[in-house]
Amino acid sequence: MGRQRVKLYIAYDGTDYSGWQIQKNTDATIQQHLEEVIGEYDPEFERIHGACRTDGGVHARAQVAHFDMSVDIPEERIALAINGDLPRDIVCWQAEKVRDSFHSRYQARAKTYRYRIDNGEFPRIFTHRYTHFQYQPISLVPMKEAARYLPGEKDFSSFKAKGCSSSHPVRKIYGAEVYSGPDEEIIIEITGSGFLYNMVRIIAGTLIEIGLEKRESEQMEEIIESRDRRAAGFTAPACGLTLEKVYYSEDFEQFFA
Amino acid sequence: MGRQRVKLYIAYDGTDYSGWQIQKNTDATIQQHLEEVIGEYDPEFERIHGACRTDGGVHARAQVAHFDMSVDIPEERIALAINGDLPRDIVCWQAEKVRDSFHSRYQARAKTYRYRIDNGEFPRIFTHRYTHFQYQPISLVPMKEAARYLPGEKDFSSFKAKGCSSSHPVRKIYGAEVYSGPDEEIIIEITGSGFLYNMVRIIAGTLIEIGLEKRESEQMEEIIESRDRRAAGFTAPACGLTLEKVYYSEDFEQFFA
Repeated sequence: MGRQRVKLYIAYDGTDYSGWQIQKNTDATIQQHLEEVIGEYDPEFERIHGACRTDGGVHARAQVAHFDMSVDIPEERIALAINGDLPRDIVCWQAEKVRDSFHSRYQARAKTYRYRIDNGEFPRIFTHRYTHFQYQPISLVPMKEAARYLPGEKDFSSFKAKGCSSSHPVRKIYGAEVYSGPDEEIIIEITGSGFLYNMVRIIAGTLIEIGLEKRESEQMEEIIESRDRRAAGFTAPACGLTLEKVYYSEDFEQFFA
Repeated sequence: MGRQRVKLYIAYDGTDYSGWQIQKNTDATIQQHLEEVIGEYDPEFERIHGACRTDGGVHARAQVAHFDMSVDIPEERIALAINGDLPRDIVCWQAEKVRDSFHSRYQARAKTYRYRIDNGEFPRIFTHRYTHFQYQPISLVPMKEAARYLPGEKDFSSFKAKGCSSSHPVRKIYGAEVYSGPDEEIIIEITGSGFLYNMVRIIAGTLIEIGLEKRESEQMEEIIESRDRRAAGFTAPACGLTLEKVYYSEDFEQFFA
């Protein structure tokens, strides 16, 4: 048979991994585990391409990836086949046969990330791997106010970590919400065309400092305008961050048209 | 100062531990971690006593333990002090100074355990450590029917694993419920005076076989009456089990009077 492009939806607990992307000095990447498993089924398999290069410790509910498959597996069996051989903290939960022109990264129109803060007095044990624990009480209202400055097409250099390989610091934020979840959780949810290196974590850290009343919510405007990393807050830890969704043309128009 | 007995409430993610109780061949026990931390504060500290000897891989939301403290720490600071030095997957979330006659194990009147089954098509990544994944659809109604045979003071030898050190197989079950949780979870909740070795996991395995229609719900009565381990179902994996609550006289009368 010829080659068939396949789109995968992948969830992972990133705690014990060095991130999505294959690296020279470690075997502990999501991409490497997936490639090993797919390679077992398909002798001609070459590479899997992920929509987002999530960092070490960052989780995903619905990372999207694609690869070209040269063995004949019915669409509804692909995810089950791959999933059977993955470690328990990586789950391939859906697979679709797609047109050859589909590209998980280049065609991604937007991404939603969620940053979860456990704001209880003591860490909740059943979410401790997926939240950043912050025992000082955080005020939701100033965080909500500050988040209103984020949407729009802007130069986000203030939230760009050193080592960012992108030459263009302009990104479009479609939505930025802060809300309270169950069990004293505070959730920051940001949807954008793309994100600079550590951008969501630096925004989360800045919003946390505003919630702790170390900064005023109105400062968010100046921070963005300064285009200076030193104006923004700390980089919130990776454990609180989850890639929630990747949007392609179909989904994108449904949500943002 | 003299000695002050302290009651602790402890939560843990048991995945990476060999259970509560200190063992010769491993450092990975909850008790050992707690003893090391308390020993740092209190040079005269000897031993911490837990209400339940949870097995390897079993979790706790509210394990109770006690120890005698010979240093002077205000009640409201004890949990914070202990918690600060524990690994992230063990949390001491409350401490109370109690009368010297209090004993976490001998005075426990009842315990509630919960067994969580992820019955989705693919494992949910953010609960995978705390649930048993079972992709074949489980029917709730026969499980609910079967659970009705459990309450009462009975000989539960059928649900006793080999190696159980207890000479008396009679326990009193106060309540046994099966209900559906969020995200395609099925939850088995059992409250009893005490439990034989692996009793909750064998009951869970038997209920799962009933939910899979490998057995009829009415068989539960015969299984109990047989007093024969071979009559019951498989031992469900430890990862799905959580110790939810330990009841002492005050709580007990509130719930079961």
